[in-house]
Amino acid sequence: MEKNRLEAFSDGVMAIIITIMVLELKVPPHADGLADLKELLPVFLSYVLSFIYVGIYWNNHHHMFHSTKHVTGGILWANLHLLFWLSLFPFTTAWVGANHLAPTPTAVYGFVLLMAAIAYYILQHAIIAQQGSGSLLATAIGRDWKGKISPICYLAAIPLAFLSPWISNGLFIFVAILWLVPDRRIERVLVQRDKV
Amino acid sequence: MEKNRLEAFSDGVMAIIITIMVLELKVPPHADGLADLKELLPVFLSYVLSFIYVGIYWNNHHHMFHSTKHVTGGILWANLHLLFWLSLFPFTTAWVGANHLAPTPTAVYGFVLLMAAIAYYILQHAIIAQQGSGSLLATAIGRDWKGKISPICYLAAIPLAFLSPWISNGLFIFVAILWLVPDRRIERVLVQRDKV
Amino acid sequence: MEKNRLEAFSDGVMAIIITIMVLELKVPPHADGLADLKELLPVFLSYVLSFIYVGIYWNNHHHMFHSTKHVTGGILWANLHLLFWLSLFPFTTAWVGANHLAPTPTAVYGFVLLMAAIAYYILQHAIIAQQGSGSLLATAIGRDWKGKISPICYLAAIPLAFLSPWISNGLFIFVAILWLVPDRRIERVLVQRDKV
Amino acid sequence: MEKNRLEAFSDGVMAIIITIMVLELKVPPHADGLADLKELLPVFLSYVLSFIYVGIYWNNHHHMFHSTKHVTGGILWANLHLLFWLSLFPFTTAWVGANHLAPTPTAVYGFVLLMAAIAYYILQHAIIAQQGSGSLLATAIGRDWKGKISPICYLAAIPLAFLSPWISNGLFIFVAILWLVPDRRIERVLVQRDKV
Repeated sequence: MEKNRLEAFSDGVMAIIITIMVLELKVPPHADGLADLKELLPVFLSYVLSFIYVGIYWNNHHHMFHSTKHVTGGILWANLHLLFWLSLFPFTTAWVGANHLAPTPTAVYGFVLLMAAIAYYILQHAIIAQQGSGSLLATAIGRDWKGKISPICYLAAIPLAFLSPWISNGLFIFVAILWLVPDRRIERVLVQRDKV
Repeated sequence: MEKNRLEAFSDGVMAIIITIMVLELKVPPHADGLADLKELLPVFLSYVLSFIYVGIYWNNHHHMFHSTKHVTGGILWANLHLLFWLSLFPFTTAWVGANHLAPTPTAVYGFVLLMAAIAYYILQHAIIAQQGSGSLLATAIGRDWKGKISPICYLAAIPLAFLSPWISNGLFIFVAILWLVPDRRIERVLVQRDKV
Repeated sequence: MEKNRLEAFSDGVMAIIITIMVLELKVPPHADGLADLKELLPVFLSYVLSFIYVGIYWNNHHHMFHSTKHVTGGILWANLHLLFWLSLFPFTTAWVGANHLAPTPTAVYGFVLLMAAIAYYILQHAIIAQQGSGSLLATAIGRDWKGKISPICYLAAIPLAFLSPWISNGLFIFVAILWLVPDRRIERVLVQRDKV
Repeated sequence: MEKNRLEAFSDGVMAIIITIMVLELKVPPHADGLADLKELLPVFLSYVLSFIYVGIYWNNHHHMFHSTKHVTGGILWANLHLLFWLSLFPFTTAWVGANHLAPTPTAVYGFVLLMAAIAYYILQHAIIAQQGSGSLLATAIGRDWKGKISPICYLAAIPLAFLSPWISNGLFIFVAILWLVPDRRIERVLVQRDKV
């Protein structure tokens, strides 16, 4: 089976997710001053964070499928499962933004991040299982410490949101920074393969 | 004629359909508790069901066109006809979700599912007609029992919604589970062809 | 210059246009009966008409670029000009639908159809100019009677809307039916070229 | 690394940005006259300007990546950074349109244009750095006077908006016209390369 359409469909869904989040940025009518813009700051900041997260997922998705040749029915559904959790980002982003870091929205934001991370993990393993021993992707991700530390942070952020949403949001930002560094592991392995 | 643009356009439309449905998930301002989230449960569940349905259609569309080489004007329009009914999913999903399983929205949801199933059937046969005898797709779908049982379930769900919407929704879930198992028939035939 | 990205971008824009029009289909809260659905009929019918029109444009765009190899800066902008007028379809569709065939919205709907037709004509001629004498597209469209009769109908529909919007809408439906028959002229020429 | 997915994702995001801006064009219920349409004029004009700007970015993005073969992690993120600022266009366009050329929205519109121009500049230099000396893109853009004059105009437009928003909008229109002339520099160099 070809992977082109899976990539095209995923690109489409992620492009829409990343773009419709901006629809939450709305200024009330006849509010044309800088003070009105300041009101939007929490919505804007949650938009920036989610934009970066979707960017990270797209980036990693790109790398992951670059090292994939064949796509099975299981991989198709594992991919749709990931897209499902990503599709909830606009909702949680809007909810956090509208409620200025309230505990419950922050915890739910963390929960959706956690589920997306789990879905990514499942997809990764569906691909590795299909590639068999000597899997290019398995070699590339190695011990995958980033993939292991991220869900732990999200999991911790959920209860911590009720203590202080600042801690949870700090954890979300920390994980984002962790991943912003592009996944050189896969890149390195791919470059080596292309040389051979 | 090339099939690439038909696939790209269909991917685009289905990606948008699956994503804009989430815009219905909205929390009223200053509602930041778990109880407010619970209010969204019917909207969320109808979103999950429709997400799975669009996923199934995308999946089957993917398989169907994988076994297709040439695209005629008739196939283009049969495909647009299918996309038209799929494009009504966000509306029926929102209506069912907003009315907590009321009979009429449930029946209309079933009606749109039925029309999409009929449109899929027409598209399938337009492709088979174009492929002629010995059609790869015809061999792959065989007796197509899933394709025959689904519209019967939708048809039954329409009047049953006025008896109890639970029965209708049960039928929608039943058909979704039926299709969630990826269409190994087409996959098997394609793998065999690729071997030859 | 490659035409792939121009096609991909146009597919994306047209896929979004055709899909976001459905966002106008909205049932007020706690309106869950068939009578409430009947209220939506004008919105639904204008959606169906516009869906068919965008489908026709996508279809013809597909054929037109299939016979095109090279893309110039002029063609890129002529294409964006067409997409601009198509992007106004969701607005005019919503306006006509919300006002049950009022004269001014109907006239404006016709005006946007007219401008899209003119933009299509300009694009077609930019491609023919680039292809030079013996242009494949020029041969394919021949005397282009459909392309000539359509803008005349739209032009007539604009003042006629103030006499009776029914006449104008009848003209819009008439032109849609005219084009629904896929453009066998281009198809035929392309098949012959592929044979040679 | 392949550039196809980067192009496809960027096309998707830009196609959505250019299309969702039209959702701001809304006529209030029971407003079906030409006077109601006239009310929309500022919203419409800001839509036209932003449509042209996104068109220009898409156009230049198209040319820029046409002369690019390899994509690095840095280029991926520089591209996402550009898409981030472009994704704010629907917000600033709506804000300017809703407030009929008020100073603050005009200044913010200019600020987002400025940031997008800077992001484009960064992306351009990430590509040139990757291509090394003898870079095709560096040769093509030459002294890049358009790329240098545009941010200066945006920068000037921000404080000038508080003097008179007309001056700022005049500058935005001036820069748009400057770029509307397709970038023949890159085109010329590419044609020469293809000849060799």
